[in-house]
Amino acid sequence: MSLNKYDIVVIGSGPGGFTAAVRAAQFGAKVVVIEKSFIGGTCLNYGCIPTKFLWQSLKTKQKIQKSYEYGFKATLEPVIFADIIAKKDRNIANIRKGMEMILSSYSIDIINGFASFKDKNTLTVLDSGITTEVSTDKIIIASGTKPSVVKNFIFDGDKIINSTDALNLKEIPKNMLIIGGGAIGIEMATIFSGFGCHITLAECENYLLPNDDSEISEEIRRNLLRQGVDILTACTNALGDADKYEKVLIVTGRAPNNDLNFEKARIKTTQKGFIETNEFCQTSVNNIYAVGDIAGKNLLAYTAQNEGAITAENIVKGNSIKIDNFVVPQAVFSMPQSASVKVSNFSQCKDIIFGKFPFTASSRAFIENERTGFVKCAVDKISKKPLAFWIVGAHSDELINTASQILKSNMEHISRETMFHPSLSESLLNAYEDAFGKCTELPKSC
Amino acid sequence: MSLNKYDIVVIGSGPGGFTAAVRAAQFGAKVVVIEKSFIGGTCLNYGCIPTKFLWQSLKTKQKIQKSYEYGFKATLEPVIFADIIAKKDRNIANIRKGMEMILSSYSIDIINGFASFKDKNTLTVLDSGITTEVSTDKIIIASGTKPSVVKNFIFDGDKIINSTDALNLKEIPKNMLIIGGGAIGIEMATIFSGFGCHITLAECENYLLPNDDSEISEEIRRNLLRQGVDILTACTNALGDADKYEKVLIVTGRAPNNDLNFEKARIKTTQKGFIETNEFCQTSVNNIYAVGDIAGKNLLAYTAQNEGAITAENIVKGNSIKIDNFVVPQAVFSMPQSASVKVSNFSQCKDIIFGKFPFTASSRAFIENERTGFVKCAVDKISKKPLAFWIVGAHSDELINTASQILKSNMEHISRETMFHPSLSESLLNAYEDAFGKCTELPKSC
Repeated sequence: MSLNKYDIVVIGSGPGGFTAAVRAAQFGAKVVVIEKSFIGGTCLNYGCIPTKFLWQSLKTKQKIQKSYEYGFKATLEPVIFADIIAKKDRNIANIRKGMEMILSSYSIDIINGFASFKDKNTLTVLDSGITTEVSTDKIIIASGTKPSVVKNFIFDGDKIINSTDALNLKEIPKNMLIIGGGAIGIEMATIFSGFGCHITLAECENYLLPNDDSEISEEIRRNLLRQGVDILTACTNALGDADKYEKVLIVTGRAPNNDLNFEKARIKTTQKGFIETNEFCQTSVNNIYAVGDIAGKNLLAYTAQNEGAITAENIVKGNSIKIDNFVVPQAVFSMPQSASVKVSNFSQCKDIIFGKFPFTASSRAFIENERTGFVKCAVDKISKKPLAFWIVGAHSDELINTASQILKSNMEHISRETMFHPSLSESLLNAYEDAFGKCTELPKSC
Repeated sequence: MSLNKYDIVVIGSGPGGFTAAVRAAQFGAKVVVIEKSFIGGTCLNYGCIPTKFLWQSLKTKQKIQKSYEYGFKATLEPVIFADIIAKKDRNIANIRKGMEMILSSYSIDIINGFASFKDKNTLTVLDSGITTEVSTDKIIIASGTKPSVVKNFIFDGDKIINSTDALNLKEIPKNMLIIGGGAIGIEMATIFSGFGCHITLAECENYLLPNDDSEISEEIRRNLLRQGVDILTACTNALGDADKYEKVLIVTGRAPNNDLNFEKARIKTTQKGFIETNEFCQTSVNNIYAVGDIAGKNLLAYTAQNEGAITAENIVKGNSIKIDNFVVPQAVFSMPQSASVKVSNFSQCKDIIFGKFPFTASSRAFIENERTGFVKCAVDKISKKPLAFWIVGAHSDELINTASQILKSNMEHISRETMFHPSLSESLLNAYEDAFGKCTELPKSC
């Protein structure tokens, strides 16, 4: 069977592909999405969403256990982890149904199966032994990434597992070795340790979250230790002890889903196997675009969505909008959450001063009984413009979006009247004012 | 006794007075604060903070009761309201201790007692029969407001109560009539009904929150009805039925604390008894300033703080910074919370289009099991600039601060890559894009 009725073929229905498909359809293009697995891609099915659901479950458990802070007496029956996993799956299924409804409302077709390039305008799609051929003018590749493998170790889905396996465990293991102290490793350690698994978290660099601010890394480390996690940093041989653990979870990074015969279309890839793209998400081949993880730039759902939306608009409307990553926040679901955002030229900034505001000094943090953590702010000493924020604390994944808008708009200062009181967000202002020794919510520093 | 050693005398230690005092001291002024009651004023002791603590207690109770959504089985023993009130009082005492520590760290003196003007440079302070006289160059009045009274009804603190009394009840009444459907009435109805009191909420206007957007008002009304609250709108004679209720809570507004002999200093007041001020918070008398509620402008803690900080800087540094209220968010702790923010010239804007995004379509709302409510966005059709946001939904009191920064910066659009996924804040973007029929997270509208 051969199909040739689409303006745009999108490969993958994760955040990048989904958003590209919908936006293109909104501008009037006839679109098809090729998806080898579930609609929603890694983010919905094996990534952000299930991780955050399990994290939220843990948070709820802790809220119950700490409800005496409000004068309550509550008892929690022993947790059956399989019940939580079932609730997670039901939620994912509901969100997926919503996404399918959106695609259908825009008359976007879905072809299930593995896409493979035949040439720069033709793809074959293999599903259960049947091959379909799709020809088109424009192709957007959003094939995403998968858990990367470690030499000599084979994921057996039982003892040696990846993040996808971990998110589907039906029981909490007695103990688990987690290899990789980046965002995913920290989130897995937080969740499983919170539900009673003894976690050993091993990172080959000297710090957890080695690419982030060292104060944030240290605060996350302290909170994990308090939770009972054993942390091994500068540890390169942790796998040698694999036998001692019931489970070994390997979360050392993500590898590109690049088994689509890119070479048949002469699409250039990097040494690591990601697709090379320009600032319009265009590949080395004129009519082919790549968005999201497969382009290897940010590996974040929301930058993928942004790339998808802009690429669709550029293709259908003939615009030339560039991807602008001047301000991209990040968040890690440690307990409490941590988040950061900085202007993209931060490393070139000079004359930086820093301010800090601990949540122990926030009245809202008292109210919410969430007094762990702080906001740290970097400010340009001359212009007084804020340049970066780091937060460890409850709701920091929401607060960081306020910080993003402050940085994105190049604001010269933060105005008190724009921040509701009592809110946690006020702490951004307080950290900023502390950089000048002018925070009114902190005692005079000695 | 007569004291004459201060550069600035501040009357009142609520958000406005406290911030003015600390900021003035930060710039080197010798400051004294006169406080007739507790440090922290209405906001900390009888206003925002205790209300939000009780609201957060209710939220915690509901989280426990809905924890089956995460697969948990939890039981909650019958709530003893006096225990919650005790926790609230402990929290307030802790926050107050922090504020006292800050004042002390800046060597700011505190005089307890009732301040009264003798002339434009002299105040008398009466405490337990002893009068102190304080002379100074500059005075900042931050005397705040108190619950307003209703003709022919006397607050007896037992059956006919005000918000301060309500926040200190030791038991949940069987039923209560609340007169006043503004922010405070809605918050009280939410809290007490949530803890089992049968509430009748009476508002003389046709809508709850009569000054806010009618869709928001309607959503709040629906959520209160669902909670079991009886709502009477366009109701002017509710007090006639006062006998039927165990308690009658009157929250019809706030009246100025103006019994300070302002006339002795020739300070002009408005017909309603608030102090007249210019855009520098200066009163009709050159050396006397008024900030916060007593100036009758916004009656919000954070605008008071802003006025306090700017007034202190203008006085001590000789600057002429004007108060800029272009963007001031508001929030009401209904269940879920509601919040709004608009540019100050919104009512003059023409060619406005609206977008809306329900939390039922937010994946983060699924994760948090908080799917009630929506974001509504007003956009200038020509410039595409966002002009206003209204939110009903969990954490809207934090989300509104992101919206504030977007409006404050005069942004021409909202960028997807600046919003962490999955967050509730993304819904601001989705509502904005919906105004153009371009939200990618909603089905095509029919």
